[in-house]
Amino acid sequence: MPETITLYTAKVCPYAHRVELALEEAGAPYKAYQIDLQNKPEWYAPKVNPASKVPAVAYGGPATLPESPSPESTKIAESLVLLEFVADLYPNSPLLPKDPVLRAKARFFIDAVGTKLNPKYFAFVHRGDAGGAEGLLQGIDDIQKLLPDEGYAVGKDYTIADAAVTPFLARMEISLKYDLGSFDVGEGVKVYETLQTDPKFARFRKYFNDSKARPSFQKTFDESYLVESYKKRYEAARAQKKKTD
Amino acid sequence: MPETITLYTAKVCPYAHRVELALEEAGAPYKAYQIDLQNKPEWYAPKVNPASKVPAVAYGGPATLPESPSPESTKIAESLVLLEFVADLYPNSPLLPKDPVLRAKARFFIDAVGTKLNPKYFAFVHRGDAGGAEGLLQGIDDIQKLLPDEGYAVGKDYTIADAAVTPFLARMEISLKYDLGSFDVGEGVKVYETLQTDPKFARFRKYFNDSKARPSFQKTFDESYLVESYKKRYEAARAQKKKTD
Ligand SMILES: [Ca+2]
Repeated sequence: MPETITLYTAKVCPYAHRVELALEEAGAPYKAYQIDLQNKPEWYAPKVNPASKVPAVAYGGPATLPESPSPESTKIAESLVLLEFVADLYPNSPLLPKDPVLRAKARFFIDAVGTKLNPKYFAFVHRGDAGGAEGLLQGIDDIQKLLPDEGYAVGKDYTIADAAVTPFLARMEISLKYDLGSFDVGEGVKVYETLQTDPKFARFRKYFNDSKARPSFQKTFDESYLVESYKKRYEAARAQKKKTD
Repeated sequence: MPETITLYTAKVCPYAHRVELALEEAGAPYKAYQIDLQNKPEWYAPKVNPASKVPAVAYGGPATLPESPSPESTKIAESLVLLEFVADLYPNSPLLPKDPVLRAKARFFIDAVGTKLNPKYFAFVHRGDAGGAEGLLQGIDDIQKLLPDEGYAVGKDYTIADAAVTPFLARMEISLKYDLGSFDVGEGVKVYETLQTDPKFARFRKYFNDSKARPSFQKTFDESYLVESYKKRYEAARAQKKKTD
């Protein structure tokens, strides 16, 4: 029987969202505590995560408030470490298959998310690099090609492979749909339209829609919060850019 | 009972070496096939790893020569995926502890190797960046701080956490000891002396020496091959640099 889990998280953070999805999918009891990343509580780095990032988990130890974690609980950081941790705590959940080959496929998919998709997402949305739109569509296609014909990344069950990618796709979609990113005005919506309508991305669309329809996602994703947060981030940057143009 | 494993590897490659160490530590029967990275066989990318890198594993399927892998075997790439794969194939080996918290510690250590140590190693040895010597010593200290007082990364057993770092430390040591890197002449030996004698690095020294003393390392590391290969790589580059100075 797993011990008490406190998850330190933040609504904007896709890395933290990965762990929330895994905990929800496992049906794990946990406390989620929101860390304001712009104004982190001073106890957070010394008592929870020296790297001062989310996600982090306090596991076990005596019952405490999240604001005063016990030195007796184990502190664990890094989203991919935590995905595996949740799968290890709930070995009979569908978070990871039992078959070593399928487990390897799940982990290879996670590696591809980190090396093929996310760098393209950051390049286009966060930095507005030249050629970023084509790059992002390529990254999505790279991930799409790893999907089996049906179901999720490694079969019928939603696993840590899917939990690793959903938070990035969901944030990317908001940036594209509402045209909120470092790209030129209109570029986001154009990519959004391509992803919505191009037959080339049919498999991707089905996969992403299935992921978003899950209760784990519904419960953990706050779209309007993110829209507001991205508006602040990118509209201010654009106004600034316009002024200096 | 695991099926047949063919490992495509290369003596120079630290990523591939990780997997050899894990297979040796698990006592797994496997065939190692050397890929010449300067002159890859034309069947390698289409039949084994589309990314055309080592390590890769062909798992299961009918018995074949490594040069003509069967389409029926499963091909698996990426060193960290393969470390987990070997641990999954041999769940009763000491490659990963059973306790989810210790497994998380192992994976956190592996993450630190990739994010804190290796970038510093590449910066100093491969690129000769300014400030690289101090950076590398810092990276080694970051890893050292994660070690328990005794034993290996997560306790008395040598696990995939250790297999993930040993190949990089061993190659780094050769570059430092023989002064073979992109750093200025003499800089490598200076860092080597610090690591050999500074009391600050005593825990690291013991850890690295224990790792090198293991049969798994003795069997899989070809020091003189690497010395020759680094001489070719760096002495040529230095001669070139001297000419253009
Ligand atoms: Ca990788």
